[in-house]
Amino acid sequence: MEPKSASDIEELSTSECWGLLRTVPIGRIALHNDDEIEVFPVNHLVDGGTIVFRTATGTKLTLIGQDPTCTFEADEVDVAEQLVWSVVAKGTAEQLRGHEQITSSFDMEVPTWQAGPKPTYVRMTPTVISGRRFPVSAD
Amino acid sequence: MEPKSASDIEELSTSECWGLLRTVPIGRIALHNDDEIEVFPVNHLVDGGTIVFRTATGTKLTLIGQDPTCTFEADEVDVAEQLVWSVVAKGTAEQLRGHEQITSSFDMEVPTWQAGPKPTYVRMTPTVISGRRFPVSAD
Repeated sequence: MEPKSASDIEELSTSECWGLLRTVPIGRIALHNDDEIEVFPVNHLVDGGTIVFRTATGTKLTLIGQDPTCTFEADEVDVAEQLVWSVVAKGTAEQLRGHEQITSSFDMEVPTWQAGPKPTYVRMTPTVISGRRFPVSAD
Repeated sequence: MEPKSASDIEELSTSECWGLLRTVPIGRIALHNDDEIEVFPVNHLVDGGTIVFRTATGTKLTLIGQDPTCTFEADEVDVAEQLVWSVVAKGTAEQLRGHEQITSSFDMEVPTWQAGPKPTYVRMTPTVISGRRFPVSAD
């Protein structure tokens, strides 16, 4: 395949980024762990300009308590069109202390990515969200 | 769906982690950017206990130059089985200066995730690799 030009890279609008995040159930949260980075897959939902997921009281919550700065990423490949999009949101995460903190528009149950008791909700509030759509270059 | 017990979480062996990384073309590299984390989707190949991907001379290379510590993640959902696996490799990344640094077993062209001129190869050498397989809990 011939290399394509940089003009094939489409920067996505903020609203398109949010729309795409709603189309996939799975994203990944990247958290600081001292000098290392931990990455966890999560089932997420979009809730009024924030990203909410449920988690067990474990590593993720400990890390968020130590440093709430985090990055969320989701992507998807359109095999037929040979296009991929990727959306990255940077911001901070906080543990929610009760359902009352989830807005009324958030009337769906947050899916649980990993089975088991998941009593704790985390809200990730982006300060920056950006996305790109670009061709997959096959061999 | 009833919550499942933690015993449903299967820790994967190192060899299984490497095997799974070979089954998906897409992973994500998480890099430090001062106090923030950047996450980039990449098309990767496994090369003798390392992960290699191609990139343009851009943000990724700048960040690796500033701090080579990074984390690579890949995952996949088996919709039929309602299972997901996730593999996380932590280590350091370095820009390769020529194809001679890629081992002879690496005889495939590295696919280019994002189209365009991609003359630069990056090798990520994990110091730790771990993986889990667990049920997706649907609503």
